[in-house]
Amino acid sequence: MLELISEHACFGGMQRFYRHESREIGLPMRFSVFIPPAAEQGKVPALFYLAGLTCNEETFMTKAGAQRAAAEAGLMLIAPDTSPRGAGVDGETDSWDFGVGAGFYLDATEGEWAKHYRMESYIHELRELVTRELPVDAQRIGIFGHSMGGHGALTLALRRPDAFKSVSAFAPIAAPSQCPWGKKAFTGYLGQDQSAWAAHDASLLMAGMQTPFPAGILIDQGLGDKFLAEQLYPEAFEAACASAAQPLELRRHARYDHGYYFIATFMEDHIRFHAQRLATV
Amino acid sequence: MLELISEHACFGGMQRFYRHESREIGLPMRFSVFIPPAAEQGKVPALFYLAGLTCNEETFMTKAGAQRAAAEAGLMLIAPDTSPRGAGVDGETDSWDFGVGAGFYLDATEGEWAKHYRMESYIHELRELVTRELPVDAQRIGIFGHSMGGHGALTLALRRPDAFKSVSAFAPIAAPSQCPWGKKAFTGYLGQDQSAWAAHDASLLMAGMQTPFPAGILIDQGLGDKFLAEQLYPEAFEAACASAAQPLELRRHARYDHGYYFIATFMEDHIRFHAQRLATV
Repeated sequence: MLELISEHACFGGMQRFYRHESREIGLPMRFSVFIPPAAEQGKVPALFYLAGLTCNEETFMTKAGAQRAAAEAGLMLIAPDTSPRGAGVDGETDSWDFGVGAGFYLDATEGEWAKHYRMESYIHELRELVTRELPVDAQRIGIFGHSMGGHGALTLALRRPDAFKSVSAFAPIAAPSQCPWGKKAFTGYLGQDQSAWAAHDASLLMAGMQTPFPAGILIDQGLGDKFLAEQLYPEAFEAACASAAQPLELRRHARYDHGYYFIATFMEDHIRFHAQRLATV
Repeated sequence: MLELISEHACFGGMQRFYRHESREIGLPMRFSVFIPPAAEQGKVPALFYLAGLTCNEETFMTKAGAQRAAAEAGLMLIAPDTSPRGAGVDGETDSWDFGVGAGFYLDATEGEWAKHYRMESYIHELRELVTRELPVDAQRIGIFGHSMGGHGALTLALRRPDAFKSVSAFAPIAAPSQCPWGKKAFTGYLGQDQSAWAAHDASLLMAGMQTPFPAGILIDQGLGDKFLAEQLYPEAFEAACASAAQPLELRRHARYDHGYYFIATFMEDHIRFHAQRLATV
């Protein structure tokens, strides 16, 4: 079921890279896992990390410095890839912000994309897979992510609060229907009809929530982020949360940019945010 | 003098990448610096990190997770590249363990290598440069490194304890005269005559030390390291330290391998080791 590609001792636990045949994607997929020392004693809560454009299943584990805090908190970390690889769709490698490395964590419905680009269903397949194959407590799973992956974390959690009990994001694409990255991806994957977009737009989803996301939401955003004004729209998500009575901690940080030096700086806060909420599920 | 390529806010301080024209190398060189928040109040101690084969000035800063502990300790981190780039020596890119990315932190004396491959003198040039251009306390500079860079840290500190007041290493090439990597590099850079090698072999240097290195030495070594038996020889350095009455803490860690997941795990210990010793210089 799971093919172990490599493993590395890390902070008393184990960093692993796996490959598996994905039912939803219809192709082999890779993902990475950090197994904390606490998993030797039984099932542990788990936290999915969804990465941003151009990243893969390795980016988070090498650059975010998350394993130390996860080992302390007894949290498993799981990082999937950002798109199918080798789907062979015409033009899938032409852009860095669409196609390969840019799956946007949704199930495509348009043309050739619909066959393999099913990243939302894939994340749930992976969630069920790790629950079966690894010492994960299925009732205590959270999700976070960065940029495109922040969009993914917010939308997947808001669409399935039964599956993901805690959510946070770094510099998420918070209103993709309004920004160039989102418009390009949604048009390509979902088509021109914008009525299909709302179900994958965190700000529009939040505006329509009947009840708030129980655990609250944490977002960190750097004010030196060159993508902030054109692509990210945290203020749209903030307004939607206000209108929906959704508890949100949106922290704006002077000087910080869009990269992993920013993410690493606030990683421990996010790990603790999830660990506390998953402990009391 | 220093050309700033990029900078990124990080743990309250600043991660910077610089380029400069190196006098010793005779070519442009790149290096990276993490400036801790404490540097806003005045000069701070600094810690050089020498990376291993195939790495560059970015590897340590993205993968080692050192900035958090360095910010807390008030230590500046400085990471040079691992060789000249663009020297144009015949065959310099033929091997991953010799030439580009593999300067071995010594001044070559053989043939065409002698002109640009002057990494030991370069490290001292860089030490003087950052002391002039950045808020570094010239009397409080330590050095550490990994693998080839562990060899570099040990040899440069033992050869110039006046310049580097503290030293540690992760999985260093501790007796290069005896191992394939070291024999290839020393033959290529220094020639067949092994009498020239001893001055760049940490175990042989240690055996000849008149007085111990004052601050003691910390080395971490993974026992799951696939290069341990053939390339690293920590036991040779350990024996030399014993014979020279050199205080050495050589920690052997079951399961850990040669990579950055190992390095990141023990990074905080090394940062604290240096910070404590540099505080009392």
